[in-house]
Amino acid sequence: MIGVKELASFVGGTLATEQIEDLSIHGVASISEAGPNDITFLGNPKYLPALRSCRAGAVLVALDFSESVNPIVIRVENPSVAFAQLVERFTPEPIVFAPGIHPSAVIGADVELGDNVCVQANVVIEPGAKIGAGSVIGALSYIGHGARIGVGTLLHSRVTVGERCVVGDRVILHSGVVLGSDGFGFELVAGRHSKIRQVGIVQVDDDVEIGANTTIDRARFGRTWIQEGTKIDNLVQIAHNVVIGKHCLIVAQVGIAGSVRLGNYVTLAGQVGVAGHLEVGDGVVVSAQSGISKNTPTAGLYMGTPMVPAAEYRDQVVHVRRLPKLIARVEALENKQASPESL
Amino acid sequence: MIGVKELASFVGGTLATEQIEDLSIHGVASISEAGPNDITFLGNPKYLPALRSCRAGAVLVALDFSESVNPIVIRVENPSVAFAQLVERFTPEPIVFAPGIHPSAVIGADVELGDNVCVQANVVIEPGAKIGAGSVIGALSYIGHGARIGVGTLLHSRVTVGERCVVGDRVILHSGVVLGSDGFGFELVAGRHSKIRQVGIVQVDDDVEIGANTTIDRARFGRTWIQEGTKIDNLVQIAHNVVIGKHCLIVAQVGIAGSVRLGNYVTLAGQVGVAGHLEVGDGVVVSAQSGISKNTPTAGLYMGTPMVPAAEYRDQVVHVRRLPKLIARVEALENKQASPESL
Amino acid sequence: MIGVKELASFVGGTLATEQIEDLSIHGVASISEAGPNDITFLGNPKYLPALRSCRAGAVLVALDFSESVNPIVIRVENPSVAFAQLVERFTPEPIVFAPGIHPSAVIGADVELGDNVCVQANVVIEPGAKIGAGSVIGALSYIGHGARIGVGTLLHSRVTVGERCVVGDRVILHSGVVLGSDGFGFELVAGRHSKIRQVGIVQVDDDVEIGANTTIDRARFGRTWIQEGTKIDNLVQIAHNVVIGKHCLIVAQVGIAGSVRLGNYVTLAGQVGVAGHLEVGDGVVVSAQSGISKNTPTAGLYMGTPMVPAAEYRDQVVHVRRLPKLIARVEALENKQASPESL
Repeated sequence: MIGVKELASFVGGTLATEQIEDLSIHGVASISEAGPNDITFLGNPKYLPALRSCRAGAVLVALDFSESVNPIVIRVENPSVAFAQLVERFTPEPIVFAPGIHPSAVIGADVELGDNVCVQANVVIEPGAKIGAGSVIGALSYIGHGARIGVGTLLHSRVTVGERCVVGDRVILHSGVVLGSDGFGFELVAGRHSKIRQVGIVQVDDDVEIGANTTIDRARFGRTWIQEGTKIDNLVQIAHNVVIGKHCLIVAQVGIAGSVRLGNYVTLAGQVGVAGHLEVGDGVVVSAQSGISKNTPTAGLYMGTPMVPAAEYRDQVVHVRRLPKLIARVEALENKQASPESL
Repeated sequence: MIGVKELASFVGGTLATEQIEDLSIHGVASISEAGPNDITFLGNPKYLPALRSCRAGAVLVALDFSESVNPIVIRVENPSVAFAQLVERFTPEPIVFAPGIHPSAVIGADVELGDNVCVQANVVIEPGAKIGAGSVIGALSYIGHGARIGVGTLLHSRVTVGERCVVGDRVILHSGVVLGSDGFGFELVAGRHSKIRQVGIVQVDDDVEIGANTTIDRARFGRTWIQEGTKIDNLVQIAHNVVIGKHCLIVAQVGIAGSVRLGNYVTLAGQVGVAGHLEVGDGVVVSAQSGISKNTPTAGLYMGTPMVPAAEYRDQVVHVRRLPKLIARVEALENKQASPESL
Repeated sequence: MIGVKELASFVGGTLATEQIEDLSIHGVASISEAGPNDITFLGNPKYLPALRSCRAGAVLVALDFSESVNPIVIRVENPSVAFAQLVERFTPEPIVFAPGIHPSAVIGADVELGDNVCVQANVVIEPGAKIGAGSVIGALSYIGHGARIGVGTLLHSRVTVGERCVVGDRVILHSGVVLGSDGFGFELVAGRHSKIRQVGIVQVDDDVEIGANTTIDRARFGRTWIQEGTKIDNLVQIAHNVVIGKHCLIVAQVGIAGSVRLGNYVTLAGQVGVAGHLEVGDGVVVSAQSGISKNTPTAGLYMGTPMVPAAEYRDQVVHVRRLPKLIARVEALENKQASPESL
């Protein structure tokens, strides 16, 4: 909590009115969410109508702001920047997981733990695994036989890293992530699906982040590979032997079938599906819910199922919406042809 | 187990035949699932053909039922109501989790537990968390630092409630739920996706139910907010800063992008996607697999990707299916025009 | 590690060149993944360009192969078969979970454990559950009250099998699977969604495999039923009272709504959705992302939303793509009609 006057001086701003009583500010919030003890900001004039009806206690505005609104007005040079300072100011300190092994953790033989590793409560680490210095293994997580975790990596609660999988440095794995489940591989033998052993691994390179309950299957052999700096959202499915390049963004609920290869800086928006064995080039950006059904080497924005370049997709949508008009035009032509005297 | 005669009198019905031997009934089942020791019911005449070939030992029918079928026939005033009574009769007692802290649970400093709380085996509760009276924390669940759980709330096994998140009263969280994973927020700095700290929380209000392995991200700041009475199915993804109104139904595998706001009584059927920052009004109902790509203030039924009112979508589907006919009509016109003498 | 000469004789092949120094081979890999100490294979001439630029240390080729390439060439009768032998040769032994109960496991009253059962660390088994001989319960898994697991079944880490659910013999459940969460059933009473108790079970028959983080809800009453030999991928949602026949393949992120019945040998590709209460016949194969919205009794390949036979769908796609041409044709007709003198 902080008084609105102190807060104005904290961001180098000026209160629009001198005579007001001080107001205790408890937090920061967006215009639509802010309550009477929150401060918000007007970063874009288009939110002015929302500001007029908002319940915030105070608002950061630009120097030239001259409207009359309910919240206490604080003028600053750059409301977005000032607000970011306040977000930081009101943000609780990040939780620090002190180094050490919780006594409830079950740690197998020949496990190597680097300096300052934190192994939280009820973790299970199988024999032969190796955890790099400063990494945190979240409560109730499972590290399989011979798995390797790099330096400064953070596993939240309830993560599974399967046997022999390899996770790099400064990786973040959110709760419920499963690395190294078996690839979905069977052959039909005498009317039954016979399991093809999946003996490869998952390799996750440095600075990757993987969202909650996302699953990445181990390779048939070799590796399923997530390269450096790629960020993966929640509930994504990545099948065996997929290779995802560097610095990609894979949004929630995307599904990538077996042996697909993505280049670098690929963005797949939510719920996109990629069919097996395809190649997707550097810089390809795919809209939500699209279905990629052929190789896509060229950078650009794509949409639809089956996926096409965005401009083509938008035309398709327009044409389909105008079909009633087209039908009417054909009908008019037919009527005229049927009664040619009208010509 | 109960004899069919006792069961007939239990539901106030009459056996169609007096002379039959008693039959031991072990359970209730639908017509298609029932075996020789199950009782089923005919709630709708359209299931009569299924009843004729079904294997049930007995069937509840309406008073005016006069067919001859294999199962023993019990006539009742309302077969659906009578069947519901039997479902209750054959239903095992709900599992009761007795109050108490299992000795294997790991409970941090300054955790407040209300009266009659049940903390099951291998649970981990971090410092500063607070659990309301009568709540049950399922086995192998994780409650983060300073999280707050209300009164009479039930967490099934293997749930994660992240730090500082707030869960109301009488909430049900199914196995594998993750509340409070980080929102998917990055900014591109010198070619690398730099993480934007996600310092808000998830707030789940009273009487909400959330399905297995569903993930709800914490807000960038402020809260991701699920309001009172809303029911969410399995494997749903809810991104940071989303607000879902009261009494919504969010069916399995729906994905809702960041900062979306749903009104009250919104229904999103399975696999629907909602693009970021959109507003969806009270009473909007969206069919399965649709993609919401613009603000939708008006109540009604919507379908398709990109989503449109249901009637418009159905027309689109019909028009697309009839395209071969339209093409043939255009061809006929062209042929006639090419040979005008035929006019 | 094995020398390339020994390896050539291991697969009954001949080195293309005699005079080479021996090379130590550390593993097997696909052409695109292989490094200087890996061996790969050319199973199909279409990969010859990839082979020319590949980094493999050695390659298995057919007897009539006569190209000059960088890797050491080993000629064999059937490169695919020989490669499979090498995969086996280089594959680590499967992890064996020795029988026994880890001391950290929490096992309720009246739990029956068959011979040679392995219960791993931090498992929780509730009272009345029964585990068949030789089954493995993975670390941090939860087995509910009265659940029954068959013989020779493998649960990976962090699996939930809910109360009274029944799992057959030789079943494989991957990490994060939830069997027996409540079906999504509510009735609207006075403006609030009132929970309908879900008192049935999930029954999983012999030789089923279920992928990571997949969820299967318990029946309203009776059972949700996965029949023998069916294989289910990751992040699949199966609602209450669904019946899936024998030997089906359900690929990742499929969603199946309540009371659907699939026949035998049904294949649903990734992200398919099936609306409630539908019947899908034996041998139906559905392409990725399709939406099944009506009964589909006849075997064959289907596509699209709403789903139609594949040939019809492909025609639809072509027709929609050609709409600009059709519109131009109608315009030409209109122009000619408008200036009939041109006839």
